[in-house]
Amino acid sequence: MTLTVAQLSESELLARIFPRLHAGSSMLLGPGDDSAIIAAADGRTVISIDTQVQDKDFRLLWPNGGTSSGFDVGWKAAAQNLSDINAMGAVATAMVVSLTLPGTTPVGWVEDFADGLSAAIVGLGAPQCSVAGGDLSGGSELVVTVAVTGSLDGLAPVLRSGAQAGDQIAVCGNMGFAAAGWALHESSILPSTHSPALATAAALFSRPEPPLSAGPVAARAGATAMMDISDGLLRDATRLAAASGVTLDLDGAVLRGVARALEDCAVVLDADPLTWVLTGGEDHGLLSTFPEGASLPDGFIRIGSVLSLDVAGLAVTIDGQNFKGASDGAVGWDHFAV
Amino acid sequence: MTLTVAQLSESELLARIFPRLHAGSSMLLGPGDDSAIIAAADGRTVISIDTQVQDKDFRLLWPNGGTSSGFDVGWKAAAQNLSDINAMGAVATAMVVSLTLPGTTPVGWVEDFADGLSAAIVGLGAPQCSVAGGDLSGGSELVVTVAVTGSLDGLAPVLRSGAQAGDQIAVCGNMGFAAAGWALHESSILPSTHSPALATAAALFSRPEPPLSAGPVAARAGATAMMDISDGLLRDATRLAAASGVTLDLDGAVLRGVARALEDCAVVLDADPLTWVLTGGEDHGLLSTFPEGASLPDGFIRIGSVLSLDVAGLAVTIDGQNFKGASDGAVGWDHFAV
Repeated sequence: MTLTVAQLSESELLARIFPRLHAGSSMLLGPGDDSAIIAAADGRTVISIDTQVQDKDFRLLWPNGGTSSGFDVGWKAAAQNLSDINAMGAVATAMVVSLTLPGTTPVGWVEDFADGLSAAIVGLGAPQCSVAGGDLSGGSELVVTVAVTGSLDGLAPVLRSGAQAGDQIAVCGNMGFAAAGWALHESSILPSTHSPALATAAALFSRPEPPLSAGPVAARAGATAMMDISDGLLRDATRLAAASGVTLDLDGAVLRGVARALEDCAVVLDADPLTWVLTGGEDHGLLSTFPEGASLPDGFIRIGSVLSLDVAGLAVTIDGQNFKGASDGAVGWDHFAV
Repeated sequence: MTLTVAQLSESELLARIFPRLHAGSSMLLGPGDDSAIIAAADGRTVISIDTQVQDKDFRLLWPNGGTSSGFDVGWKAAAQNLSDINAMGAVATAMVVSLTLPGTTPVGWVEDFADGLSAAIVGLGAPQCSVAGGDLSGGSELVVTVAVTGSLDGLAPVLRSGAQAGDQIAVCGNMGFAAAGWALHESSILPSTHSPALATAAALFSRPEPPLSAGPVAARAGATAMMDISDGLLRDATRLAAASGVTLDLDGAVLRGVARALEDCAVVLDADPLTWVLTGGEDHGLLSTFPEGASLPDGFIRIGSVLSLDVAGLAVTIDGQNFKGASDGAVGWDHFAV
């Protein structure tokens, strides 16, 4: 019989989790007291919080027969939170994690979750980040909340509001792969039949690979604005444009070139790969602006130019043209949309 | 018709919440970017996370006809998190908040929640603490997670592990009132019929009043160990004793004196007030140890003495005697217990 969390006390469950949590160099006091203590060397702490809810943000069993393991959910929770720190130009220092668990949740699932969290921290290049504490609750559905802290190491943060007319627009990281992987999970195409291209998309949806060293590198290279692409390029570009009071004009040819990497998936799923690139979230790449003439750091590609605010008030254009829905940011992911 | 969260976009809902969130002096960058930035003046950040789940940690409608409003849930979320920082001897600097909401949740409930959060921060004496960011998700039940940060202002943290044989044991704050209020909520006694004593217990259950300035004061007064009483005095004393490798011997006469304040409630509910004092959590008072001879700060009362670890290995005794369940910490609140 599978051991479930309802069969253990909270302290017994914690005793199984603690040894699996990654401890990095920034942790001055780890789990076990009322609070943890994290180093904040330059006198500032960057902080963010993000939640994943079962059957909203992930499914344990997908329509195509694929599964999201505890490891996958832990990896993704770490990846998307680490990305919020990266997008400020900061380096992650710690996470605190809250799990709401149905009593029927296998203990093994929770152990896998802890392993996935730690594996993402190390595997994505944030080994200084510790899992410093957490909380366990009972509930009727799985809810995973991670709060993450970071250090700017003396740098100014790179905000959404700093883009200037004349800047280059650049992105770093995967574009549209998580959207393709999601479409695949929601399809009837069995995981056992996946081509290598499909398997890659499925894997990058389950375990996204945000470019975690790119944020601080971009900050040092003079990025004027930056954000994490978590809800889709067009939606997030609209937010950056609004925060900066500018228009972001994207280069259609470059974006179609980016979308070519998804063509094999798109053919199988009868989808438009450019739509995945424009509206797909959860790859957690970076959208950044740099002064014209600045050399882009490794991994960044130029996808357009920052213009003075369009006379029609358009936040984002492609080759100078509006597109349906972009002006109000309605293209992309909304957590309450039906 | 009541406006529900399903009828608003995430950004529309955030626009209603943001103006209600308290902004304190420690916030260097507030909500709206990928992360917030908090001051950490002495180069360390204290951090904790805590979750409340609907129908586990609170009910919107109680058996006695009482309700927990959004304001109550927000107040309590703030109070219990601020208490975790207080218990380290630190001063709270910021919160980030994640709300998982059924689509049917009234927008007014969420606005009330934000007001309750801010009111607790100011009302409980933590005005320097900001609500610096958050996340909204859809889900089938209400889940409220708060991560909170604090500053030690150059002091050493007061851990659970520092109690020494010979120390005094002291508590600060309400004892057993939240347990009495919970029993009242679970009874058939209508709120409209409450005597002043019952109304006080009900109010302190809905909106606990942890002694938030007492933690740093105790630290400066030389407290050797400290923790937040969130799961009941006996259970939490057992944890402190285990962390320190000592036995905590409590004074039964003093505890019975403390319980006298609950006698009016106990008579009505046919309950034992001492049990509320010994096992009731959620008042979020402080359990501290101080060197013998030290003057206890205002608000602290002595409830016993720290002894060398009992030869029988008992963590907590009352007047030198064991009591059922205490040695394994099984008395008090367990999140997964049936």
